[in-house]
Amino acid sequence: MKTLSGFRMTAIAACAAIAFGASAPALADTDYSQYRDVFEPLPALPPIPADNSMTKEKIELGKMLFFEPRISSSGVISCATCHNPALGWADRIPRAVGHDGQVGERNTPTVLNSGFFTAQFWDGREDDLEGQALGPIQDAIEMAMPLEDAIERLEEFNEYQEKFQAAYPDYDGDNVINADHVAHALATFQRTLNTPNSPLDRWLVGDEGAMSEQQMRGMKLFADNGCVACHRGPALTDSHFHRIQVPGSEDEGRYLVTGEESDRFAFKTPTLRNVALTYPYMNNGETATLDEAIRIMGQEMLGMEFSDDEVADLEAFMHALTGDMPQFEIPALP
Amino acid sequence: MKTLSGFRMTAIAACAAIAFGASAPALADTDYSQYRDVFEPLPALPPIPADNSMTKEKIELGKMLFFEPRISSSGVISCATCHNPALGWADRIPRAVGHDGQVGERNTPTVLNSGFFTAQFWDGREDDLEGQALGPIQDAIEMAMPLEDAIERLEEFNEYQEKFQAAYPDYDGDNVINADHVAHALATFQRTLNTPNSPLDRWLVGDEGAMSEQQMRGMKLFADNGCVACHRGPALTDSHFHRIQVPGSEDEGRYLVTGEESDRFAFKTPTLRNVALTYPYMNNGETATLDEAIRIMGQEMLGMEFSDDEVADLEAFMHALTGDMPQFEIPALP
Repeated sequence: MKTLSGFRMTAIAACAAIAFGASAPALADTDYSQYRDVFEPLPALPPIPADNSMTKEKIELGKMLFFEPRISSSGVISCATCHNPALGWADRIPRAVGHDGQVGERNTPTVLNSGFFTAQFWDGREDDLEGQALGPIQDAIEMAMPLEDAIERLEEFNEYQEKFQAAYPDYDGDNVINADHVAHALATFQRTLNTPNSPLDRWLVGDEGAMSEQQMRGMKLFADNGCVACHRGPALTDSHFHRIQVPGSEDEGRYLVTGEESDRFAFKTPTLRNVALTYPYMNNGETATLDEAIRIMGQEMLGMEFSDDEVADLEAFMHALTGDMPQFEIPALP
Repeated sequence: MKTLSGFRMTAIAACAAIAFGASAPALADTDYSQYRDVFEPLPALPPIPADNSMTKEKIELGKMLFFEPRISSSGVISCATCHNPALGWADRIPRAVGHDGQVGERNTPTVLNSGFFTAQFWDGREDDLEGQALGPIQDAIEMAMPLEDAIERLEEFNEYQEKFQAAYPDYDGDNVINADHVAHALATFQRTLNTPNSPLDRWLVGDEGAMSEQQMRGMKLFADNGCVACHRGPALTDSHFHRIQVPGSEDEGRYLVTGEESDRFAFKTPTLRNVALTYPYMNNGETATLDEAIRIMGQEMLGMEFSDDEVADLEAFMHALTGDMPQFEIPALP
C-alpha cells in the first residue's frame, strides 16, 4: 500500500484540503450529545450461547489451551503465537506466520472482543467462536496438527484429564477430552477477552471529559460520514461483508466461501475497538498506519477524500477506542 | 532414549534392586540435619555484575525485549517462544524449533535462575547472560535476524527510544539503542527470573516439614552418592563441563568451542532447580522422564545402578526443587 499509492493519496488529500476547506468546527458550536444514540458502550461480556455456559473451570481450561503449543505439529505454535497478548492479541505483522515459517494470505485479526462478532474470520466461514476455534489448529500453514493428534496429545496429560472433567462435569460419554470440548473451552476463554472502559465508552456513560475535543470531532465525522453504517454496535462492526479490493490484494474473500459473485473481494468489517493497537490494517495487512487506513476507507467505501485535518480527527477518535486490556496470568501448563 | 535403552535399563535396575536390597532406611534412623551443610538456599537475586547495575527501568526494558517477536526475521519468534513462561521458561520439546520450523541440535535450557550460572549454553560458549543474550537473535535456526536489523527495527519505535533512554540515562553516545544495551537489558530481566522457596529451600532454613520423608531420603541419596559433586551451589550446578554421551547424541558439545580433546562430548551440568518442570532431559532432549534421567545419570556419571526405590526417592527429591515461579505481567509492546 505504501509503495503503490502513498504518493498519489498524499497529493489528492492535499488538493482535497484546499477544495473542501480544512478548518475544524469549533467545539462550542457543536452539540455532541446527539451522538450518544449512535454508539453503544461495550458490555462487560458478549452474549453467552445457551449450549456453552461460561464457568470458571471452562475459562481456566480454555486459557490453558490458548497458550498450549503442543497442539501444533511443531510443538511451539499456540493460539497466543499469532494472537499475542503483548501485541494487542494479534501479531503486528502484515500476514500471519505459521508452521515452518509459512506466511498466510491474511492479517491476523485480534481476538479481543471477538465474542461480539456474529461472523468469524475475515471471510465469515464460521459463525461463532466455537466454530472458529478448531480451524487454526488444523490449518496446514498455521498450527498444522490433525485434530485427532491434538486430542491424543492432550490426553497424555493427567492434568488435562482433570481440567476437562472439571469443565464438563455432566459429560457422561467416553472421552471427555474431545474436539467439541476443546472448542467450547477456547471459545469461553475468548469471551472473557474484552476491553471495556475506552474513552468512547466512558463518554457514552456520561464522563464528559473522557475524550479530547479532537476525538469528539473525529466521532462526529465518523458518524456523519457514514463510517458507522458498517462499524456499528458494541464492537464497532456489523459482522457483515463488504466488497473492497485494497492494493496488493488478489484475495477473493468471502467468494471463496459462498461462491456468490456478489461476495467476490468481500471481507468482514473488522472491529475498530483497539484499532490503534492492531496495526497493520486491511485483509492483507499492507496498510501500515491508521492515517493511511482512514484515507483508503474514505475512498473505497465512501467515495470521498477526507482532508488532512479530518483524517487527523478521525485518527484521534480511533485512539479513543482503546479500552482496558484483559488482566490475566500466563497459565502454568502441565 | 526410550527405544534404545529403556528395556535394558529396566532389566538392570530390577537386578540391582535384588542385589543391593531396595528397602529404604526408616526416617527415625537418620539424622538429616547434617545435609543442611551440603546445600545452599537460593538467594533472592544472583550476583549483579559491576558493569550492569539492576534498575527498574532496565528490568522493564529487558522484559519487553524478551517478549519482542519483531527482532526475529519472521516477526513471530521471541525469546519467550522457546523460553516459554507457561512451560517452565523452556519449551518441553526435545530440541528447540526456530526460524522456518528448523530444529536445533539441543534441548532448550530454562532461563530460570540462569543468573546463577557462571557458564551459559550447554557448551559454555558464553560466560554470562550479557554474552548469551544476543546469540539466539542472530542464530540462523533460531530468530535468524542480523543484529543490525534487530537494532534498526527497535529504533523505529518511539517507545523503545524512550525506554532505552530511561534504562541508560547516563549514556552520551549517538545511539542509545545498541547491541550492548539490548544485551544488558535482557540479562537484567533474566536475573529477576528466580524461583526461591522450594521445599528444599524451606527445609534448609528450618521448616522441618517442608519436604516429605521420601524427599528427605532422596536428598540423602543425592548427597551420599555424589550427585551433589556437580549439581551443587545455589542453582544446583557447578557450571562446569563433564563428558557424557547419551544415546542418540553425536553432539561433540564443548569440544566445538574449545577444540580440546578432553572436551569432546562434554556438556555443562544443567541446573536441577525446577527440573520437574523442565522435561525432557539431556542435551538432546531424548530423555522423557525424571525416572529415566536419574537412571542414566547414575550409570553414566556415577557408574552405578540405582534401585527402583532409590530412583523413586531421588525423583521425589527432584520435585522438592520446584520453587515459586516469577510473578509478572506480559508487557504491552509498542
